[in-house]
Amino acid sequence: MRFCSECGSDRLEVTTPYGDIGLRHSCGACGTIHYSKHSMVAGCVAALNGRILLCRRAIEPYRGCWTIPGGYVEIGETLQEAAIRETREEAHAEAADLHLLAVYNLPMFSEVYALFSARLAAPMISPGSESLEVALVAPDEICWDELAFPMVREALRHWLAPGRDVVDVADFLWGPDAGVQVRRHAQCQTSESSRRSTS
Amino acid sequence: MRFCSECGSDRLEVTTPYGDIGLRHSCGACGTIHYSKHSMVAGCVAALNGRILLCRRAIEPYRGCWTIPGGYVEIGETLQEAAIRETREEAHAEAADLHLLAVYNLPMFSEVYALFSARLAAPMISPGSESLEVALVAPDEICWDELAFPMVREALRHWLAPGRDVVDVADFLWGPDAGVQVRRHAQCQTSESSRRSTS
Repeated sequence: MRFCSECGSDRLEVTTPYGDIGLRHSCGACGTIHYSKHSMVAGCVAALNGRILLCRRAIEPYRGCWTIPGGYVEIGETLQEAAIRETREEAHAEAADLHLLAVYNLPMFSEVYALFSARLAAPMISPGSESLEVALVAPDEICWDELAFPMVREALRHWLAPGRDVVDVADFLWGPDAGVQVRRHAQCQTSESSRRSTS
Repeated sequence: MRFCSECGSDRLEVTTPYGDIGLRHSCGACGTIHYSKHSMVAGCVAALNGRILLCRRAIEPYRGCWTIPGGYVEIGETLQEAAIRETREEAHAEAADLHLLAVYNLPMFSEVYALFSARLAAPMISPGSESLEVALVAPDEICWDELAFPMVREALRHWLAPGRDVVDVADFLWGPDAGVQVRRHAQCQTSESSRRSTS
């Protein structure tokens, strides 16, 4: 940000306003404080008869690698609507009956992923403009080392594991060597539950 | 947005760029396309011996009403870190052992709430600058008609109900009379699971 989007002034300062807790771009001319925001990504593991919809990416990053349908949530959308729309755009396919599968933090990119499991409402699929090809893949046909993002790998692993009803909650932390550490949050809430039931 | 934050020009147009699917502010001078984003809110139902931490709001909206600690996620934070920070700021209290409790869409405000259940690590609480008072409240002491937001009401209901391990997923839709419709998403994934196991 180099100019104030409210008044056009270049008198922008990066400061922590009084009573605030973070650094903001604030305008020295009109006083507007500009807040940066997270980006929300929604996507889904859409399946038909146990086969999973995967798309081979036609765009960077990871051009040529396989991914599940997903992308940035648009203004006015729910997370589920975004996942359904992305499935239409990338694979001309209809996702239905979405259930929350995973919530992933990418704090280094200020992104949050909300990924769903879904039913593919019909077997018709074809590549959208961001896909080179699309396929319905059996679990043992997944090329794990040709997947586009570590979040896709973890979501597929969670989808394939027992206990898919428990949402997978994790942080993805990139190291200096571009390796990714996955820090998983426990999602079973028994300790406080049992404390409540005995109190 | 009235001026381009990249070049300061007022030649902003609201258009759908080629290949895009939504309306954007795009700059007729430098060509920058500006994307709007969702706001992410994180908060928690923090409990100690079955009593829930509630804060009476010192700020609008809903000044004087009760809420759980929560607020906007900051750049670089995880959802859990934001919930812990908000609990410190609003109640000078330490939330620990966070588990995902609810994911709520507010599409009319382009907001997503991620709410957690948490353990209060110590009984010390006191009001922060955004709270008039704070309290540890037993479930039967909750003043349901003095709660600040419908999302707080639904999260507390879900926390108190059996089956808290299942994340509460819902959309909140405001009607013309300011009434709120809560449209709940099913979160049990048995149909596709059973389909997979029998295929």
